Amino acid sequence: MSLDLPPALVYLVGAGPGDPGLLTLKGRLALERAEVVLKDALVPEAFRAFNPRALWLEVGKRGYGEKTSQEEIHRLMAEHAGRGRVVVRLKGGDPMVFGRGGEEVLFLLEQGIPFVVVPGVSSATGVPSALGLPLTHRGMARGFSVLTGHDPFGLSADTLVFLMPLHQLPALKSVLLAHRPPHTPVALIGRGTWPNQAVALGRLEGLERLRAPDPALLVVGEVVGVLERLWPGTLGTQEAKDVGKD
Amino acid sequence: MSLDLPPALVYLVGAGPGDPGLLTLKGRLALERAEVVLKDALVPEAFRAFNPRALWLEVGKRGYGEKTSQEEIHRLMAEHAGRGRVVVRLKGGDPMVFGRGGEEVLFLLEQGIPFVVVPGVSSATGVPSALGLPLTHRGMARGFSVLTGHDPFGLSADTLVFLMPLHQLPALKSVLLAHRPPHTPVALIGRGTWPNQAVALGRLEGLERLRAPDPALLVVGEVVGVLERLWPGTLGTQEAKDVGKD
Repeated sequence: MSLDLPPALVYLVGAGPGDPGLLTLKGRLALERAEVVLKDALVPEAFRAFNPRALWLEVGKRGYGEKTSQEEIHRLMAEHAGRGRVVVRLKGGDPMVFGRGGEEVLFLLEQGIPFVVVPGVSSATGVPSALGLPLTHRGMARGFSVLTGHDPFGLSADTLVFLMPLHQLPALKSVLLAHRPPHTPVALIGRGTWPNQAVALGRLEGLERLRAPDPALLVVGEVVGVLERLWPGTLGTQEAKDVGKD
Repeated sequence: MSLDLPPALVYLVGAGPGDPGLLTLKGRLALERAEVVLKDALVPEAFRAFNPRALWLEVGKRGYGEKTSQEEIHRLMAEHAGRGRVVVRLKGGDPMVFGRGGEEVLFLLEQGIPFVVVPGVSSATGVPSALGLPLTHRGMARGFSVLTGHDPFGLSADTLVFLMPLHQLPALKSVLLAHRPPHTPVALIGRGTWPNQAVALGRLEGLERLRAPDPALLVVGEVVGVLERLWPGTLGTQEAKDVGKD
C-alpha cells in the first residue's frame, strides 16, 4: 500500500478525538516527516511517541483557559517553514472543523507557504461513533448538526453538507432557495479524496447545472468562498467547472 | 506507540472518504486482523492491499444502483462470526454516519456477537477538509448540518452535536426546550475515546445536572436511545451517571 503524501512545508493534520489509534495513516506519515510540531494543547501527550525527535511546541487553547493567540500560531508556522523546516500543525479532531483551520490555510496561502491538509476524525462524529451511537438512524434521525456550545444562542448551522445529492439537484435548489440567497456559493465535489476527484463550484441559483462524478457531496454556504480563494477563478461563473485534484 | 484494539468478532470500521491514506491506524489494525471483510461497494478496491489474504465480500450499495439487502449483510456477519471468524465490516466514511451502522450494532447486540466500532473520517467532514474548505469559519459559519440529498424535503437535522458545551448547559437547555420535548435523550461525553472517557446519559429536562470531564461533547436526540440499548440502565434517570469506557 503506497500512501501518497504530497511534499509541503506545512501539514495541517487532524489528530482525531484523542485516541492515538484514530490518527490516519497519512497523519502518521506527516508526523514522521515533521521537524517541528505545533500541537494543540488538547491533543494528548501520547502523540509525541509518533516522532520523539521533532521539536514539539504546544500552542492553542487548553479547555476554556489560557491560549496562544492565532497570530502567534501563524508567526510560528511562518518562522519555521521560512527556515525550510517541515511543520506539522497538529489539531484536535479535523483541522477544518472548528479550530480556525480556515484562517490558517488562508494565512499560508497569503504567505506563499506550500501546505497540505490531512483530514482527521472529527470529534463530533468520532466520539459518538466509538461508543456505537449513530448520528443518523432509520426512523429516528435523517441528519445532524454540529454546533459549538460556546454560543448557545447561535443554533443556526450556517454550512450545509449533502451526501449523495446528484439525483436531486433541482429539488435541492428549490428547497434551499427558501432559506438561502441565490448567490450563496456551492461546491459539488465528486469522488472526494480519490485520485480522480473533481470539484465544480458555482452559485445556488445555478446548482442544477453543476456536474460531478458519483459518489458526490454538496457543500452550501459562505465557507465555499474560502475554497475559491484557494482555487481562484472558478467560482461565480454559475457554470460547472471541473477542477482536477492537482 | 501501542495501539489498543480490544478483541471482538466483528469490527465496524470506517474506511474514510476513499483515499486509503485516510484510514485510521486502528482501522488498519482491524483489517490486518480480519479473516472476512464485508466491504461496502463504494470503498475503493485499493483497500484490499491492507489484507490480501482475507476473504473479501462486496456488499452494500453501489451509488444509486444494485445493493445487498441489510438483512443479507446481517446474515453474513452472523454466519462468519458464528464460525469464530474475525469479521471487518468496512464502511465508507464513518460507520455510524449514514450507512445504517446503528442497525448493525443493534443486530450484533441482539445476537450477542462481540463487536467494536472503529470510527473513520466521515466524508461529510473529510472531503471538504482535504480541499482546504473549512465547514466553520470565523464570521461566516458557526456550525454545519449534514443531510442526505436523497430526501431534499427533509432538511431537518434531527440529531444535534455540541462541542465544548460544559460552561453553557443551563443556557443550552433553555434554547433547546424551545425546539425539542423535555424527555429528549441526551448524552454528555467527556474525554471521548481517551482512556478516562466518561459518559453521562439523561434527558433534556435534566441537562444542567449532567457532569463530564473536559473536553466534552453533547449529543441531543432520539439516537441517544440506541446508546441506552448498548449501555442499559443508565438512561432516563435524569441524573448524571458516569460510565467507564470498559
